[in-house]
Amino acid sequence: MSVLTSPRSPRHWDPNWPGHRLFVEEPLRLDCGVDFGPFTIAYQTYGKLNALRSNAILLCHALTGDQYAADPHPITGKPGWWSSLVGPGEVLDTDRYFLICANVLGGCMGTAGPGDIDPASGEPFALDFPVITIRDMVRAQKRLVDHLGISSLFCVTGGSMGGMQALEWAASYPESVFAAVPIAAAARHSAQNIAFNEVGRQAIMADPDWCGGRYLLAGRQPARGLAVARMAAHITYLSEAALHRKFGRNLQDRHAVTYGFDADFQVESYLRHQGNIFVDRFDANSYLYITRAMDYFDLAAEHGGSLARAFTGTQTRFCLISFTSDWLFPTAESRAIVRALNAAAANVSFVEIETDGGHDAFLLHEPEFFKTLGGFLSGCAEHRGLTRDQQ
Amino acid sequence: MSVLTSPRSPRHWDPNWPGHRLFVEEPLRLDCGVDFGPFTIAYQTYGKLNALRSNAILLCHALTGDQYAADPHPITGKPGWWSSLVGPGEVLDTDRYFLICANVLGGCMGTAGPGDIDPASGEPFALDFPVITIRDMVRAQKRLVDHLGISSLFCVTGGSMGGMQALEWAASYPESVFAAVPIAAAARHSAQNIAFNEVGRQAIMADPDWCGGRYLLAGRQPARGLAVARMAAHITYLSEAALHRKFGRNLQDRHAVTYGFDADFQVESYLRHQGNIFVDRFDANSYLYITRAMDYFDLAAEHGGSLARAFTGTQTRFCLISFTSDWLFPTAESRAIVRALNAAAANVSFVEIETDGGHDAFLLHEPEFFKTLGGFLSGCAEHRGLTRDQQ
Repeated sequence: MSVLTSPRSPRHWDPNWPGHRLFVEEPLRLDCGVDFGPFTIAYQTYGKLNALRSNAILLCHALTGDQYAADPHPITGKPGWWSSLVGPGEVLDTDRYFLICANVLGGCMGTAGPGDIDPASGEPFALDFPVITIRDMVRAQKRLVDHLGISSLFCVTGGSMGGMQALEWAASYPESVFAAVPIAAAARHSAQNIAFNEVGRQAIMADPDWCGGRYLLAGRQPARGLAVARMAAHITYLSEAALHRKFGRNLQDRHAVTYGFDADFQVESYLRHQGNIFVDRFDANSYLYITRAMDYFDLAAEHGGSLARAFTGTQTRFCLISFTSDWLFPTAESRAIVRALNAAAANVSFVEIETDGGHDAFLLHEPEFFKTLGGFLSGCAEHRGLTRDQQ
Repeated sequence: MSVLTSPRSPRHWDPNWPGHRLFVEEPLRLDCGVDFGPFTIAYQTYGKLNALRSNAILLCHALTGDQYAADPHPITGKPGWWSSLVGPGEVLDTDRYFLICANVLGGCMGTAGPGDIDPASGEPFALDFPVITIRDMVRAQKRLVDHLGISSLFCVTGGSMGGMQALEWAASYPESVFAAVPIAAAARHSAQNIAFNEVGRQAIMADPDWCGGRYLLAGRQPARGLAVARMAAHITYLSEAALHRKFGRNLQDRHAVTYGFDADFQVESYLRHQGNIFVDRFDANSYLYITRAMDYFDLAAEHGGSLARAFTGTQTRFCLISFTSDWLFPTAESRAIVRALNAAAANVSFVEIETDGGHDAFLLHEPEFFKTLGGFLSGCAEHRGLTRDQQ
């Protein structure tokens, strides 16, 4: 009756996947107090670093994204999550900028995460992996940026959790961030968002194949729990209007309802499909850790309760972008950040894009969004002296 | 790590629970084509039926509600879901009206549902129970109303799925409904709502203790799947504003986050609690069947695609009530019904109540809502000649 995927072999990171790896020797002091490391960061680059090392843009990925921003995904073969933005002459112009995208700490695509082998036990970390924060992810990225010899990033940008990282970068390393573009983001995770994340985590942990987190050792995978988590989350990424426009009450390959529990409606079939394909490319424990990092994110709390204080004296140029139909990270969240930046006398612009694309609009072909991001970057590039001729 | 409830004994309907039972001998022709029955309807009444049998109000319960609208729940001991509305001199004035509330077909509180014994097999129906619709629920209620000798209900009302039933009553038995008050309802389930229901169903069906639906026979209960389903649904019942006001990012009995997967945040603890207590009072298969009935509901489709046609020539007095912060059944859904009623030249009033209570506002103490419902009923009572003296 249920078509959600049965337990299958867990997915492992594959050393043959394309891309770079940085082995970080010096342990990282995490927010939880643990000195973590040595560890690995897996990352991709696009374009060329110029002689002044002044044209680097750090792309920060969202919850279930990864470093393959503009390459085909090594498991699914699908185009990278920002492929349509990246390339010669595109918004993220590889003739002009050097793009870096790293898998986040806690991830499952090559950077250290709960699926890695714990040197202390010789077994996968599972829940012995330390709970990480957005700031920890950014600390790890800083190591990578230092390794690449870049003292000042031209820009840090990303959508959703990627936007949280962009904010954290600007707050933690202001001298290293010339411009920041947090998209569809927030300075703290809301109660509703924590609630949705908790549903996903409970769905995973309720799956007996989760095995208390030690499913890799057991040769199992909590595929059904992870699929349910993805289904619930996926609804929050779309607007009600888009769901209505795309699916409405349309039936799936049938002319009438079947009076049963098969996927009569297209929206059901679509959601089940989203759940099923997700488990082939994502690790359940990484999902727990990364959602937790989002829940813990509260930039004001890191600065004595004042968001403005997080940006005191900042020289970074900010552009905030939100989407009208995004109810997961609504425009009000971006406005709160703009207010704090204004209070800190920062250089900030803010654009709300009209779309029914919902939260996922930052991954869609949204011409106004592309124009906004491209225009802001070009303006900043001029201020930075990044003419094309100099590349 | 997970505090969601472990499998426990399934809950059974108990013949010692208070209330009335009607044994319906003549089978009911269901929308799916099955002739179902004989079967039982469990119901409660409050107040007294007058001599003219003209003062009966049918209260229709929501997805996880039941017939105990104003009695303590026999399992939880908590007050009935509309206790604050029911009583002498209250909005649903038991000195004036005779209130009837029946457990819906497919339910688990005494009316025939998937947990009942299938006479054909001698085992619980499980998924052999026919898939029912809102119209089937109403057909069953009509049998009860006929049995009580009531040819015309003074009013049919209810919130959410209860509102769907009120609409269906007015459309199917217009001559039997003097007034109808659909609250926080819709004339068809939206794609987003179907999607959320599907997440809940998949969470249940993904639980190995669901046993392909035959958990009662196996002496098990898909408690964790049902709890996850409830958690996901519960978020949709509340507004973002109320979640923020009630919980925000407050921590649960601690001064700092624990860097773990315990319920650090109050909103997590609250949701887990909601999931855990739900499985003690509700049946997983009933949850599947009743959500399915909601998904299938499309009143216009039952009338050749025209909602107005569902109400052609109606003499029923309608009052539609919606809540500003309800994003599950938003005001736009009620407006669409009002437009259709206007097109049918029906007698209709419509009030949108300002509240941050979300969809669940119809279960909360909302003075404006109480005043609206009470005022409408009093006005209709005068037209119906229901003076208090005549009671």
